Amino acid sequence: MRIVVTGGAGFLGRHFCERILSLGHEVLCLDNLLTGRRENITAFEENPAFRFVSQDVSAGAHIEGKVDAVVHMACPASPPDYLRYPIQTLEVGTIGTRNMLELARTHRARFLLASTSEVYGDPKVNPQTEDYWGNVNPIGPRSVYDEAKRASEALTMAYHRKHGIDTRIARIFNTYGPWMRANDGRVVSNFIVQALQGKDLTVYGDGSQTRSFCYVSDLIEGLVRLLLMEAGTGAAGGLGEEWGINYPINLGNPREEKIADIARIILKMTGSSSQVRFHPLPADDPKLRCPDISRARRFLGWEPKVSLEEGLARTIEYFRD
Amino acid sequence: MRIVVTGGAGFLGRHFCERILSLGHEVLCLDNLLTGRRENITAFEENPAFRFVSQDVSAGAHIEGKVDAVVHMACPASPPDYLRYPIQTLEVGTIGTRNMLELARTHRARFLLASTSEVYGDPKVNPQTEDYWGNVNPIGPRSVYDEAKRASEALTMAYHRKHGIDTRIARIFNTYGPWMRANDGRVVSNFIVQALQGKDLTVYGDGSQTRSFCYVSDLIEGLVRLLLMEAGTGAAGGLGEEWGINYPINLGNPREEKIADIARIILKMTGSSSQVRFHPLPADDPKLRCPDISRARRFLGWEPKVSLEEGLARTIEYFRD
Repeated sequence: MRIVVTGGAGFLGRHFCERILSLGHEVLCLDNLLTGRRENITAFEENPAFRFVSQDVSAGAHIEGKVDAVVHMACPASPPDYLRYPIQTLEVGTIGTRNMLELARTHRARFLLASTSEVYGDPKVNPQTEDYWGNVNPIGPRSVYDEAKRASEALTMAYHRKHGIDTRIARIFNTYGPWMRANDGRVVSNFIVQALQGKDLTVYGDGSQTRSFCYVSDLIEGLVRLLLMEAGTGAAGGLGEEWGINYPINLGNPREEKIADIARIILKMTGSSSQVRFHPLPADDPKLRCPDISRARRFLGWEPKVSLEEGLARTIEYFRD
Repeated sequence: MRIVVTGGAGFLGRHFCERILSLGHEVLCLDNLLTGRRENITAFEENPAFRFVSQDVSAGAHIEGKVDAVVHMACPASPPDYLRYPIQTLEVGTIGTRNMLELARTHRARFLLASTSEVYGDPKVNPQTEDYWGNVNPIGPRSVYDEAKRASEALTMAYHRKHGIDTRIARIFNTYGPWMRANDGRVVSNFIVQALQGKDLTVYGDGSQTRSFCYVSDLIEGLVRLLLMEAGTGAAGGLGEEWGINYPINLGNPREEKIADIARIILKMTGSSSQVRFHPLPADDPKLRCPDISRARRFLGWEPKVSLEEGLARTIEYFRD
């Protein structure tokens, strides 16, 4: 297959491209490098099956030749990034998503949206199943990301319903691993870099809020299965008739950890003598977040394999280098 | 002031243009007439202060001359309309809103977004205050409207925060009155037209779901006050410090009525011998909807004046003609 990957120079995009190339597919990577990094993809640039085009997909993209699938991952994804680029974040989630759905429509290509657990906001149910409607502040600072992704999902379903596009929506929960940016602002990379540098670990709130962390190779395995599965195959999705493969699927690790416990584990694994420092919780920070992955288990035969300790060990090793 | 009004040929747009012209302002009306009607505005076309441009604002708009305010009302607004035009609805709420915010930014103009009570979805609190986050299905058929408007609000707040645009967001609850389309699909026009034609009145569900109906002249008075009020004036908003004039304000009538009661009142007022027929409730239809208008009362000194009976009498007279 010839697959267009937007945001392919980002953390998840880079791993996705690597995996898809290893399966023998062609990748056309579109990225404007706003938060992605060229160095993430230099390893592939010798590969004739890989091509990089510097392109802001919010401005549109004309692609020569056939396109079998469009994987739309482009978006600033860490809170410091999307708070720094609020309008670009909304643009790529709305205009960018529309442009990529149009690309899929004109090529009759499959479309995979990299959505997010942020569509659940600060959830009132735990764990979150895909039929939960979420609890999102539409006008808060984080809404530039959360509402962009909710609008992306609405657009994706509208193209599925109106134009019969074979759409896939992955709701991706917190993911970590090598190739995260050291200054990315996400909790695992923050903690590891702080611990390795002997700086205080920054915990927001009292650290009792929970997250579930998925190691990147597990997440990518789920994404690839979701993209490559043929429509109409697979077991029933568990949320009723209509919830076929074109409806959202949670991808994440259901092991829930308190942020303060993650900090302690990382301090121990790095042998760091850093202290933990508590800071005020940012606006609308979710108090818990944990995926129900029943649908992914049934549809994709997928579940995470890498333990937190193993994943952290590999990530610490990456940042040590 | 020279005011750009998008969707000025629609039901609310038409009334807004009429009122703004009567106050001595200039209006540049942009409408692609997808659901608006040219006949709504023929009365103004002799007026030198009014100009109509046939324009899809999702495709952008270049305006010659000064612009003091942009009022973004363009959007299919009744459920049959937005279900018929799902992608155009999402486009005008996302791309159209971005384009109009850019217009406001380049002209340093005030920006008023016509948002909606639909951002509250099927609410879990009643009445709805502006700090309620809502309960919206991001992937249901109605999401093309609800999520478009939530993304519009997020975009509007992002331009306010990032570029200091003097933004206003009106969350408009159900409104009725003359110049609604007979086949608009909204409940009051449906009932009146059915009653006048001697057809059965279509009630969805058992009719126990409630709505609050605001007569159009009241609604327009609130919108005009919200647009014309200078930032920094007005009493405190009642939802804390940050909730200034740039934050959302509910506009609607807090008198709550059951749908079945509205049907009965209209049957009586029209002297119709029509029957009421019950149909299945559509997907995600909200069970109740009623504005808390404390903020509008304090900030704008506004509240509805026209009783339901008086408003219905005027609307019935309009449809009789």
